[in-house]
Amino acid sequence: MPKSNNSSNKKPNKYIYFDYAASARANPSSVHSAGVEAKIKLQIARREVSDILGARPEEIIFTSGGTESNNLAIQGVVLNWQGKVLPHIITTNIEHPSVLETYKLLAKRKLAEITIVPVEANGIVDPQKIKKEIKKNTVLVSVMYVNNEIGTIQPIKEIAKIIRYYKKINLTLFPIFHTDAVQAVNYLGLNVEKLGVDLLSLSGSKIEGAGRVGILYKKKTVNLAKVFGGGDQEGGIRPGTENLPEILKFSRALKSVQKIKEKEVKRLIKLRDYFFRTLDVRISDVQRPNNCIVNGDLVNRLPNNVNVTFANIPSDLLVIELSDKGIMASAKSACKSGESGGSDVIKAIRQVQYQGEPLVNDELGGVRFSLGRDTTKKDIDYTVKVLSKILTKLKKWYD
Amino acid sequence: MPKSNNSSNKKPNKYIYFDYAASARANPSSVHSAGVEAKIKLQIARREVSDILGARPEEIIFTSGGTESNNLAIQGVVLNWQGKVLPHIITTNIEHPSVLETYKLLAKRKLAEITIVPVEANGIVDPQKIKKEIKKNTVLVSVMYVNNEIGTIQPIKEIAKIIRYYKKINLTLFPIFHTDAVQAVNYLGLNVEKLGVDLLSLSGSKIEGAGRVGILYKKKTVNLAKVFGGGDQEGGIRPGTENLPEILKFSRALKSVQKIKEKEVKRLIKLRDYFFRTLDVRISDVQRPNNCIVNGDLVNRLPNNVNVTFANIPSDLLVIELSDKGIMASAKSACKSGESGGSDVIKAIRQVQYQGEPLVNDELGGVRFSLGRDTTKKDIDYTVKVLSKILTKLKKWYD
Repeated sequence: MPKSNNSSNKKPNKYIYFDYAASARANPSSVHSAGVEAKIKLQIARREVSDILGARPEEIIFTSGGTESNNLAIQGVVLNWQGKVLPHIITTNIEHPSVLETYKLLAKRKLAEITIVPVEANGIVDPQKIKKEIKKNTVLVSVMYVNNEIGTIQPIKEIAKIIRYYKKINLTLFPIFHTDAVQAVNYLGLNVEKLGVDLLSLSGSKIEGAGRVGILYKKKTVNLAKVFGGGDQEGGIRPGTENLPEILKFSRALKSVQKIKEKEVKRLIKLRDYFFRTLDVRISDVQRPNNCIVNGDLVNRLPNNVNVTFANIPSDLLVIELSDKGIMASAKSACKSGESGGSDVIKAIRQVQYQGEPLVNDELGGVRFSLGRDTTKKDIDYTVKVLSKILTKLKKWYD
Repeated sequence: MPKSNNSSNKKPNKYIYFDYAASARANPSSVHSAGVEAKIKLQIARREVSDILGARPEEIIFTSGGTESNNLAIQGVVLNWQGKVLPHIITTNIEHPSVLETYKLLAKRKLAEITIVPVEANGIVDPQKIKKEIKKNTVLVSVMYVNNEIGTIQPIKEIAKIIRYYKKINLTLFPIFHTDAVQAVNYLGLNVEKLGVDLLSLSGSKIEGAGRVGILYKKKTVNLAKVFGGGDQEGGIRPGTENLPEILKFSRALKSVQKIKEKEVKRLIKLRDYFFRTLDVRISDVQRPNNCIVNGDLVNRLPNNVNVTFANIPSDLLVIELSDKGIMASAKSACKSGESGGSDVIKAIRQVQYQGEPLVNDELGGVRFSLGRDTTKKDIDYTVKVLSKILTKLKKWYD
């Protein structure tokens, strides 16, 4: 090897980076010291997240978001049974599209048999109805922690208890219990032991400042089949270079949520209930024009969720009118809002409320106001004022 | 509805955000004006990316990264055939793990039959050997544009021509042609028409400042089965709230790459060849200690790729020694470096170089120096100097 010139005798002040092909400057899988540094940061983030969930670091899988977490969990359980037994799954009729559509996909491909348990009129599933559906080939029960549209909190602990008891008396390891906790993250307890779940999905996009990554908690004893082929990252369950910058933002944001959670929950419950009161809520009283009905249970719902339907007024139209006045609300789950047609969740609860009878506002959907850290009483006052004007205007057209 | 107090009569200066449940403040699927604004930004980014690829906006699918793009492409083609014909796939033995492992997964699940064509001694596949393997049930040919370890450029246009000809004389729509272009993005042409590909994967993590998203180009006529269940984003192929901030970073970075590409390629080829010269390269001359052999073709390789093996010295050991001196190189594809054992790519080319005869350095792997925008001649001089010292030290142990 020829001698290099003298100008290069000194060690460089910063390191020399010759790993441009290995993604960004911090690839936790690289062997060199910049890679090792990145790996340590990743390990710390994993430990911080696992501490908050009451889990072990190796039980945390970083994903690209909530949809992916749900898919890796559900498909991961089901694909293990390919060519063996047709696996049976129990879920509810108000799950997020990333759960319900995954079931549809698996059923269409004849990879699983799905039982969908309808929720009650208050938007909450009856654990006893889940219990009735468990059978020998039930490998998975998947019930969301909180509904994304109407904010109703599902009885996760009760369902977990039923499953534990079933497994005990039948000496079986199944069904596995999965919960989509994406909407619960800011306000409810996340301890997986206390909840009694084996798989739990979280999404950074629902946490202020958290960045676009997701989490899948996977109990150590649960074996997931691979959905993706690729590298060995995240135990092989989620291959691909880890999104370290966003993962670090996630763990920081999740930690800061824990600090303000208790206080924020109290503040938001006050605001939410004030919102309901000023809307002059009369549940189920849809006969009087301009009146609104609350969608979902008034008590067992997220502190920040106000979801209402106004008689005769299509919710998506209302959202556009509100937006015109500088108020950003939602007409249904944003994740499916590209599609036409009303909200499946609102339809699901209306069907029970009116025992299957066609209802005048079956297709009206619901307007969701989801409150957050910046929301004030003044915002609500202004919004109700604007709403009142809009409804008076629209009444002329829709009465 | 009760009247609200007078303090709330004025329209707020900024908008009131009541959509905290719909992820970040800019969810392109939301109906309100903040959502519409986000949607427009997404559309502009999609158009910018499609312009660079010579494609239509609706042919661009934003994903979470290269591994996901490859999986959505490959599994998307294969899953369409489930329950019909056993689909056949042709690929090479030096593909990225996100391609090869996906094939292993599909073969294991009896969803596809895989033919792996070995590359030649120079790390480049012979298009005629691909041609020979095409048969009636061949639905997919997948050949990477550039190898991630040794930087060899594959004859994509020639393979595309062979496939086009096969389809024409057989009056068939198959095989579909996919290329993993992740490593090509900074230096080679990306026009999908000129390349003649139907599916092309890109990753933001390989572009300076691009952010952690990926791209899957899908020709309009190609029909992909769903891998994920979820919302309707990205034509249903990639459900989940779009990672708008990172997508915007991606399109900006990809645009700026185009501007500097030509100049940067020239600069890097000079640096790369200078690196090779100072390393006193003698290809295949592994008998003399301390000599190094170049892995992969010297001409048809990326402008920034220097991959060499030093006789008797394990490459991963060298990378650790270099890192100690502030030089960050790589011993193999970072995406698989968690695993033990040598580099499959180096093994693949060694087998051809020595006609299957066991070689003294079969397990040594290769050291990859991948140059980038900050790399200078001085860095190379310093590195060769340090390398020389390390090799002298290690020689005592390994001779």
